[in-house]
Amino acid sequence: MTDISPSDNNVRQFGQNGIIQPLLTDLYQITMAYAYWKSGKTEDHAVFDLFFRKNPFQGEFTIFAGLEECLKFLGKFRYSKSDIEYLKEILPPSTEEEFFHFLSTLTAKDVKLYAMAEGSVAFPKVPLMRIEGPLTIVQLIETTLLTLVNYASLMATNAARYRIAAGNLMLLEFGLRRAQGPDGGLSASKYSYIGGFDGTSNVLAGKLFNIPVKGTHAHAYITSFNGFSELKNTHLQPKNGGKPRDLLKLALFWKEELLIMFKVAASEANEGELAALISFAIAFPSGFMALVDTYEVQRSGLLNFCIVALALNDLGYRATGIRLDSGDLSYLSNVARHYFTEISKKYDIPWFANLLIMASNDINEETIVSLNEQGHKINCFGIGTHLVTCQRQPALGCVYKMVELNGYPRIKLSQEVFKVTMPGSKDVYRLYSESGHALVDLVQRYVEPPPNVDEKILCRHPFEESKRAYVKPARIEKLLVLYWEDGRIVKTLPSLQEIKEKVTSSLKTLRPDIKRNLNPTPYKVAVSDDLYHFIHDQWLKNAPIGELS
Amino acid sequence: MTDISPSDNNVRQFGQNGIIQPLLTDLYQITMAYAYWKSGKTEDHAVFDLFFRKNPFQGEFTIFAGLEECLKFLGKFRYSKSDIEYLKEILPPSTEEEFFHFLSTLTAKDVKLYAMAEGSVAFPKVPLMRIEGPLTIVQLIETTLLTLVNYASLMATNAARYRIAAGNLMLLEFGLRRAQGPDGGLSASKYSYIGGFDGTSNVLAGKLFNIPVKGTHAHAYITSFNGFSELKNTHLQPKNGGKPRDLLKLALFWKEELLIMFKVAASEANEGELAALISFAIAFPSGFMALVDTYEVQRSGLLNFCIVALALNDLGYRATGIRLDSGDLSYLSNVARHYFTEISKKYDIPWFANLLIMASNDINEETIVSLNEQGHKINCFGIGTHLVTCQRQPALGCVYKMVELNGYPRIKLSQEVFKVTMPGSKDVYRLYSESGHALVDLVQRYVEPPPNVDEKILCRHPFEESKRAYVKPARIEKLLVLYWEDGRIVKTLPSLQEIKEKVTSSLKTLRPDIKRNLNPTPYKVAVSDDLYHFIHDQWLKNAPIGELS
Repeated sequence: MTDISPSDNNVRQFGQNGIIQPLLTDLYQITMAYAYWKSGKTEDHAVFDLFFRKNPFQGEFTIFAGLEECLKFLGKFRYSKSDIEYLKEILPPSTEEEFFHFLSTLTAKDVKLYAMAEGSVAFPKVPLMRIEGPLTIVQLIETTLLTLVNYASLMATNAARYRIAAGNLMLLEFGLRRAQGPDGGLSASKYSYIGGFDGTSNVLAGKLFNIPVKGTHAHAYITSFNGFSELKNTHLQPKNGGKPRDLLKLALFWKEELLIMFKVAASEANEGELAALISFAIAFPSGFMALVDTYEVQRSGLLNFCIVALALNDLGYRATGIRLDSGDLSYLSNVARHYFTEISKKYDIPWFANLLIMASNDINEETIVSLNEQGHKINCFGIGTHLVTCQRQPALGCVYKMVELNGYPRIKLSQEVFKVTMPGSKDVYRLYSESGHALVDLVQRYVEPPPNVDEKILCRHPFEESKRAYVKPARIEKLLVLYWEDGRIVKTLPSLQEIKEKVTSSLKTLRPDIKRNLNPTPYKVAVSDDLYHFIHDQWLKNAPIGELS
Repeated sequence: MTDISPSDNNVRQFGQNGIIQPLLTDLYQITMAYAYWKSGKTEDHAVFDLFFRKNPFQGEFTIFAGLEECLKFLGKFRYSKSDIEYLKEILPPSTEEEFFHFLSTLTAKDVKLYAMAEGSVAFPKVPLMRIEGPLTIVQLIETTLLTLVNYASLMATNAARYRIAAGNLMLLEFGLRRAQGPDGGLSASKYSYIGGFDGTSNVLAGKLFNIPVKGTHAHAYITSFNGFSELKNTHLQPKNGGKPRDLLKLALFWKEELLIMFKVAASEANEGELAALISFAIAFPSGFMALVDTYEVQRSGLLNFCIVALALNDLGYRATGIRLDSGDLSYLSNVARHYFTEISKKYDIPWFANLLIMASNDINEETIVSLNEQGHKINCFGIGTHLVTCQRQPALGCVYKMVELNGYPRIKLSQEVFKVTMPGSKDVYRLYSESGHALVDLVQRYVEPPPNVDEKILCRHPFEESKRAYVKPARIEKLLVLYWEDGRIVKTLPSLQEIKEKVTSSLKTLRPDIKRNLNPTPYKVAVSDDLYHFIHDQWLKNAPIGELS
């Protein structure tokens, strides 16, 4: 395996994908902007909440991600000349010229954006962001913000779940080829790293985000060799210098040894495969890692790997391990570990017993849980399709709802209670126990005084009158913090590494039963007594009167 | 609805997303490239097939898409200086300098790419593309080609399935906010249009690809109005000119009429909603379209829409229709159609009966099939999450396998028979019946003479000896055509519109039972007798000998 941690002086580059621009939006944002403009409402002061209604993957937590991308989008929000020309083409001829002038000068300078820290655990109905400012601009950024938060958060959450299932094993993201579009792949690499993965196969993600990049070789490399005659060069210099020695000759010696040791017939171990592995070892003598399932694992690939690893060892190089890409992963990993242990003992090479076993065949969260139960000997999972497409639930349903206009609360009703929005500008506090566990997220009206540590605080279910309890927190965290004001980022942004650490520390505050794979306990989200009454007053005021009589 | 068909002289712009570049690949492609280079195999002549093994969505067909993007990628394939610098950082220090020089001069000029026409129906195991050229470059483009074909084809297939389910109804893609990354959204808009959709809400997709863009307004627009007092201007000029008239006054007249006609109490119809719709109608008097479920459909939204549509009619404007975004879509569409028909009759406004009813709440293919059975009155579906994330199966499993090297066949074996590759360079012919239906895709060895019309052709199952039949085709189509040679595109590429038409015409050649939603019949994929024996010879030659004894 070519293990690659980019050097620290490789400054993290933060270019944003060029397609993230003001026109990456739904047309109705533009038509609404015109209607607002025609109605003289452009400068009305609006407050919107961005939140989701349900945790993904039948779980009870979500990781909030995508904030930095949203802020960069705000920073560069401006319609280009060609954007305006295109909009003139597609809006009705009756659209007034003055409106296009208005659009062409529009920026996000009057927007205020409050958000949770990127990498925080988050819960249904609690605003991830509160966005305030003139109605039109705040409306116009809706779709793009949702696009940037939805998949980023879904991906980070998915990765965090794999991390929980896999414990301390190494996790690598291998999904680029199956991702939903090139940027789906790039975002997957970034947000799976944040969520808890150790690296990616995606080279561009490594270059842009300074994420460790990993990779071995494909089946094609193995099938490209037929036999030893294709090896143009078989010599390799020992690690500590000196005269190059013939790796093929050493390998053939070890082949004799291992065929006897593991009772394999010479004809069973594919010769082209051995030739391919020797050539690969000559190119990458340190950290040699081999894919072993091209022909057959036990009697060909695994054996050929051990042969080459022992030959390399003669020259002072340590191999890294193998990758299994098909078959019964639990069984094969045990066979491989058996080979490694036996060789380690017989030839007194202690590190050989600990060679890395990577598995990469169609792994998902359930597979890992099931492999854990079977007692596998895998050290590392390479995960593609299921991770990057979030197969179990490929979309997070974040929404963006107006909650206040010119100081007046706004509510969106629905026949489905869980779709009713919480009106008014709000703040969110996370209350912690003495032991450091998060107890409840408390949503309050913006005008209420913040809750105090060591005081009894009434926490209510937003919609069920009887569900309420007093909580006496040992620590209180204000979750929504100002990130954008006066046209610029007003808070120092964490590095990708710091966001990754935030995910870990934030998840640590959740009780294990909230995070478990099967039947997790829901985390509590509550409203203050004041907000409870406010919601229900607004609901009554706005409900169709026929329905209440 | 703001119906937007970009003008014909708006030349289609074909910029490619900047992140599509040679480093958007898996690291192992680069490490293999180095190992090939070290082994002197860089210029070996390789042939790879790009294909999938299973149709998505439990269906029996797939639409091939993404070709143009692949060709553009080949056209710009070249490592930048900073790419090379990054690769030097991440590859082991022992990597020879000369290799980086080799990489820095590498282009796709010696690659040949054969492919099916973009928009064709395609089937498992049949190569969508055959890529030939020097081993290293042909290997290095694997991941990017897969990324560009996998999601594009999945998306186009998904869209085509919605089109089949929806018959002639209008289909609009509304998925940007839920897509997997910004480019996931943009690709979804493009490939769902190709696959059979009529338009998108995504403005950037409209600008870049000349796709019709559609949109109305969000719930936020409705909730931003409390009452008539917020209407700064209520006057609108009649369509055919003349003095502006008071739309509010006209609306209040019609409100009186309709409250009586539909037995609704004045208090039931939300006044803020009516104010919002009046303001929207003043901004977009032609093609007025309203979202009607913000408070309640039947007694508020629908009524308010009819009021404004009748007021607009007094000024000579025709409304377009309504959008339903929640509730029982079949029932509500019938209620709406009833309102429209009654009004049409009573006030003798024939077009009113035919107002458009759009539904956009969490629609998927199954919902459409079920709504069809219930007898809905919907004219148009706006489809988001399920369409763009391909929820039912979010990845297509295209693979890229070496089949020949320096004229020698290569085979990838597997304990799962369906994963065994078909070795050697191959051609594909689609055989048609007299009636124009596709009968079978016949895969042959490249060296075989093409099949002839009106001759009996033996078509064999690739792996089951007993499955074979003679076919006498009335027409034969050679599917793999040369698109890239000598560093350039050598075939005129179709426009997006032509690709869209290709999808339609290609699907028409399939029997209906192959395309149906429930238990479709598999389409036949066969190999020639020569290829059959060739596969099995190669299989025997490469199988581990222990297994055969």
